[in-house]
Amino acid sequence: MAVVVQNISRTDRSIANAFGGFGVSTVHEAQGRKGYLAPYLSPIYPGAHISGTAVTISVAPGDNWTIHVAVEQCEEGDVVVVAPTSRCDDGYFGELLATSLRSRGVRGLVIDAGCRDVADLQTMGFPVWSRCVSATGTVKETLGDVNVPVVCGGQLVNPGDVIVADDDGVVVVRRKEAAEVLEASRTREEKEAVSRERYEAGEVGLDVNNMRERLAEKGLKYVDQEPEH
Amino acid sequence: MAVVVQNISRTDRSIANAFGGFGVSTVHEAQGRKGYLAPYLSPIYPGAHISGTAVTISVAPGDNWTIHVAVEQCEEGDVVVVAPTSRCDDGYFGELLATSLRSRGVRGLVIDAGCRDVADLQTMGFPVWSRCVSATGTVKETLGDVNVPVVCGGQLVNPGDVIVADDDGVVVVRRKEAAEVLEASRTREEKEAVSRERYEAGEVGLDVNNMRERLAEKGLKYVDQEPEH
Amino acid sequence: MAVVVQNISRTDRSIANAFGGFGVSTVHEAQGRKGYLAPYLSPIYPGAHISGTAVTISVAPGDNWTIHVAVEQCEEGDVVVVAPTSRCDDGYFGELLATSLRSRGVRGLVIDAGCRDVADLQTMGFPVWSRCVSATGTVKETLGDVNVPVVCGGQLVNPGDVIVADDDGVVVVRRKEAAEVLEASRTREEKEAVSRERYEAGEVGLDVNNMRERLAEKGLKYVDQEPEH
Amino acid sequence: MAVVVQNISRTDRSIANAFGGFGVSTVHEAQGRKGYLAPYLSPIYPGAHISGTAVTISVAPGDNWTIHVAVEQCEEGDVVVVAPTSRCDDGYFGELLATSLRSRGVRGLVIDAGCRDVADLQTMGFPVWSRCVSATGTVKETLGDVNVPVVCGGQLVNPGDVIVADDDGVVVVRRKEAAEVLEASRTREEKEAVSRERYEAGEVGLDVNNMRERLAEKGLKYVDQEPEH
Amino acid sequence: MAVVVQNISRTDRSIANAFGGFGVSTVHEAQGRKGYLAPYLSPIYPGAHISGTAVTISVAPGDNWTIHVAVEQCEEGDVVVVAPTSRCDDGYFGELLATSLRSRGVRGLVIDAGCRDVADLQTMGFPVWSRCVSATGTVKETLGDVNVPVVCGGQLVNPGDVIVADDDGVVVVRRKEAAEVLEASRTREEKEAVSRERYEAGEVGLDVNNMRERLAEKGLKYVDQEPEH
Amino acid sequence: MAVVVQNISRTDRSIANAFGGFGVSTVHEAQGRKGYLAPYLSPIYPGAHISGTAVTISVAPGDNWTIHVAVEQCEEGDVVVVAPTSRCDDGYFGELLATSLRSRGVRGLVIDAGCRDVADLQTMGFPVWSRCVSATGTVKETLGDVNVPVVCGGQLVNPGDVIVADDDGVVVVRRKEAAEVLEASRTREEKEAVSRERYEAGEVGLDVNNMRERLAEKGLKYVDQEPEH
Repeated sequence: MAVVVQNISRTDRSIANAFGGFGVSTVHEAQGRKGYLAPYLSPIYPGAHISGTAVTISVAPGDNWTIHVAVEQCEEGDVVVVAPTSRCDDGYFGELLATSLRSRGVRGLVIDAGCRDVADLQTMGFPVWSRCVSATGTVKETLGDVNVPVVCGGQLVNPGDVIVADDDGVVVVRRKEAAEVLEASRTREEKEAVSRERYEAGEVGLDVNNMRERLAEKGLKYVDQEPEH
Repeated sequence: MAVVVQNISRTDRSIANAFGGFGVSTVHEAQGRKGYLAPYLSPIYPGAHISGTAVTISVAPGDNWTIHVAVEQCEEGDVVVVAPTSRCDDGYFGELLATSLRSRGVRGLVIDAGCRDVADLQTMGFPVWSRCVSATGTVKETLGDVNVPVVCGGQLVNPGDVIVADDDGVVVVRRKEAAEVLEASRTREEKEAVSRERYEAGEVGLDVNNMRERLAEKGLKYVDQEPEH
Repeated sequence: MAVVVQNISRTDRSIANAFGGFGVSTVHEAQGRKGYLAPYLSPIYPGAHISGTAVTISVAPGDNWTIHVAVEQCEEGDVVVVAPTSRCDDGYFGELLATSLRSRGVRGLVIDAGCRDVADLQTMGFPVWSRCVSATGTVKETLGDVNVPVVCGGQLVNPGDVIVADDDGVVVVRRKEAAEVLEASRTREEKEAVSRERYEAGEVGLDVNNMRERLAEKGLKYVDQEPEH
Repeated sequence: MAVVVQNISRTDRSIANAFGGFGVSTVHEAQGRKGYLAPYLSPIYPGAHISGTAVTISVAPGDNWTIHVAVEQCEEGDVVVVAPTSRCDDGYFGELLATSLRSRGVRGLVIDAGCRDVADLQTMGFPVWSRCVSATGTVKETLGDVNVPVVCGGQLVNPGDVIVADDDGVVVVRRKEAAEVLEASRTREEKEAVSRERYEAGEVGLDVNNMRERLAEKGLKYVDQEPEH
Repeated sequence: MAVVVQNISRTDRSIANAFGGFGVSTVHEAQGRKGYLAPYLSPIYPGAHISGTAVTISVAPGDNWTIHVAVEQCEEGDVVVVAPTSRCDDGYFGELLATSLRSRGVRGLVIDAGCRDVADLQTMGFPVWSRCVSATGTVKETLGDVNVPVVCGGQLVNPGDVIVADDDGVVVVRRKEAAEVLEASRTREEKEAVSRERYEAGEVGLDVNNMRERLAEKGLKYVDQEPEH
Repeated sequence: MAVVVQNISRTDRSIANAFGGFGVSTVHEAQGRKGYLAPYLSPIYPGAHISGTAVTISVAPGDNWTIHVAVEQCEEGDVVVVAPTSRCDDGYFGELLATSLRSRGVRGLVIDAGCRDVADLQTMGFPVWSRCVSATGTVKETLGDVNVPVVCGGQLVNPGDVIVADDDGVVVVRRKEAAEVLEASRTREEKEAVSRERYEAGEVGLDVNNMRERLAEKGLKYVDQEPEH
């Protein structure tokens, strides 16, 4: 009963691309502190920052066959998201599959399992966010599904949703909320730029954010250190 | 009943600074193999090496309000140490707070919780040792304490103690023991320099450290590998 | 009853060296997906890639004395493999021992425990694959064994076996199977080079590997996404 | 923007109840090996076995206020499912809330966080499946949502879905698939009863499941142990 | 420089004993949600509930010698608290040492490491809260300290402090705060008894705790589930 | 290239059985503190205590086919030991396979992976020591080996070795060392019986084991607690 869903509705390409200008933490906050995949999904090398539209893959434990199936469903600007149906640390993905995905314009991979060939992947500049690095290979016996909703890093990801990933991890933005969240990300960043200037000038957050009155109400006390014996 | 303790007694600045010339492992050994914070506190980027005087913060889970409160208690040469009252992996700290701390001369942060904006923090050169990286934000609802004794990474840290941190992790040195431990670190390093030269020249530790007699007493046997079948 | 086994049978040096041209994942696959040490054994800095013959050390928890004992059993081209008799995260190994090992031509260390002085080890270019980084020191009280079979990262390692290690982790190859596995690694890499070219040219794995027929037999269905409400 | 969704569509009560006659592993297999919540969700005491309809709660980290909100949305035969928006090990739930839920006919709780008062909960016979046991309390500051889809133990749970829980853990069955999965569970159990009799009589699985031919095709070899040296 | 501190100031015996009437979660709340040891410290068998005065022991990794040293410092009504100076999962403690401690009136043990002989310990009714169960033995080579402040499960424990332990874990109460916290525990329990009656009668927490107005202020919305497609 | 090794040399049955009279910790110590499988292998229910001869199984991740193959290699008094070739938490084993093994006289199972149907297994009294409990099922696609040496819980287990398991975990004894270790276990237990009597009579370990002189040599100091401020 394995299924490949074709011709998915993707988030508008220009919107998905524009998210690449914002960090994962900014986007996470801008959409109301939701959508952040579990922090154990970390980049295999530092410095990558991508955004794109999700092609989702549900795989059996220890079996990467469905990733091969999914390749031809990908297009320029996609990010592939892979979730096993039960926890698995095996190395589902390496540089050959990366070569194939890159030739179709895929920008990176998020996988709630292991990844291998990490030195090669860094050399070729194909970023992966994974649960772990593992050379343990997988088989090609059991089929999974392509472009169905998956839970990856504890978050629901639908095909066509926006994925943003950087050194802080990975965040998903719903397709229908993408335009609004993009705008909120811009607003947040502009507001932070103002705060940053004040912080650089030596002002403290208690003043920048007008917190002193509320702190007093909550009963915060300032005392001097007791003299020592 | 939240409290900010002001005007804490810090370790002498010249002593605290001088620890920056010694690695965490050296200092840990020099003070009798104690004071090392749990190794899950790791640097968010490699290559940083700092020392300074602790400003301590006890925070509620998922709430970074007290870090804002603590900023104005910091001075040039401090290292901020944050411990939640129960385990929390959220991202309490990012580049805005780092900007604020840096403007006051703080050298880095040690936090038994999550950190975010790690790419920005690396770019601006503000090092953090944290339990994890996480974009998950925090709220500002519950007050904690500033400059009280905290347990961070399983070690007690008092305000004003010395913190040394590098790629090996973080070590705390009591304020009253700092001068003595600094001297012991110097002595240890000088002794190691002598050993290093002998090792480079090809001598083995059994001779450099006069271990052969004690090994024999303990009954160590040298045998040849049995021929194979 | 501690024992040092001398004059072990090592894998032929030219064979052991030749493995350095192949990645850990390739070797692991080429020998039938076996011999991969647990992925928690990770490099302390990225980019190292070594191969060599194993000198094995069984150590007591929190005691690195036997590593000193083992140094003079090492020769040019060896890789030292250390396994504690029960789980221990302490920092058994640092730059002084690395200096000693390097002066004998040892290429690196694999340890199912902690390592320290990691900044120094990176500077001097002595790679270590370890369970963790920890400054916690060890004592020299209890003897262990040198060049006995050990279990490291869940895999049996015999003295003289081949060790290959890179950013994907560590794999062990039995001495008697080394020539055969080396040949299989070459074959695999040549085959992958052909696939890589086809992937770069835009072919997908379903065609490169003739998978379409088997997928149809397994009942894979292609459907279009349902229109949304 | 916190929301309580009222008057949810629950799985038919008689169907939800009937699942109580089948183990979690049976149901998991019967629906095609899906829907099993991560195995770190374990019972706080052994021997409980429940089924019911999900009332779902999304909570902020360290804040159990929304569980209080949800109580009056519960009815006889429900199982409450709680998921924090980021990982939290605090003790959200104890015997007072259990008393309240039980008075409304709730059969148990599944929570991707901590639980406390476990001795009392065992005494009163209110089962909980949790990530951990923790006495750490929570606050009542931030609102969450009731009866929205949540991800708990890595699985999506919708309000009204069937929850089955026993010593093997927790499985979710979609409301619309419940009748079909119930039937498949019955079929599976009947088939297993036949196999069980044959196993008890001494037959082996190779014969009970006709595996010998396929094993031979796969190349399985039977050899005698080599004589020892 | 190992030290045994004798004649420590213990919390008044009648106060320490009285804590045995209150659960760990109650005491933890009553003292302002602090003092709870990390929840990985769990009972080796269910159903034990003790309170007493702490005798503290700092041990080297893999070395239980100092526990033997500490036995004669114990008296009727004590609870022994053991913390290794670095993480160690070895089995420091078994039924022989338990026999020795029990003969002096010690009520149980809390250890941030491993414990063994757990079946025997259950049979003899000597409860232990430990990080893990492990048969791995320890040596008697390195001395530690008795009755110094230790960090156990991430909490500072001073000799003479009150320890309360049950199925929820372990909480420490400072000696000087013990009388006050005991009183607060009583008050809390009385208040909970009132709430419990109301919950049993079917009232919900929103009314019992007068939460409805504050929920409305926070903007909580009640909506009906949307009809399905 | 999968292999079933038949007619293995088992440890003498009377010796293997006699180990059932000794606890895992006793046996582990008696053979020189070795052979203890990692403590994450824990019993699925408390109170079981078995010994027997190992039938070993190497399985692919997520595939339990080879356990079926192994059943007919078992005989009265065996203990089955299962190790996956890479980490896997799936539920390989449940009550049907247990029924089959029990009908052949197998006493229990040790598996470095998951187990399910744990309530049923407890009811039927078939003990299992596993890495975890998981309902996640496995497939029957890839063959493994029967009665080859395996690494389970970090220890090498050969077919025919003795396995002893109780609430402390699992220990393996080499077939050729079994008689000697059995004798050493008896000796150890007799010695402990003497110590136990002295402990019960109130003597402390420092006297029972004549430790006072060595403690003094090591420099242990007894001091009184300083008076408080």
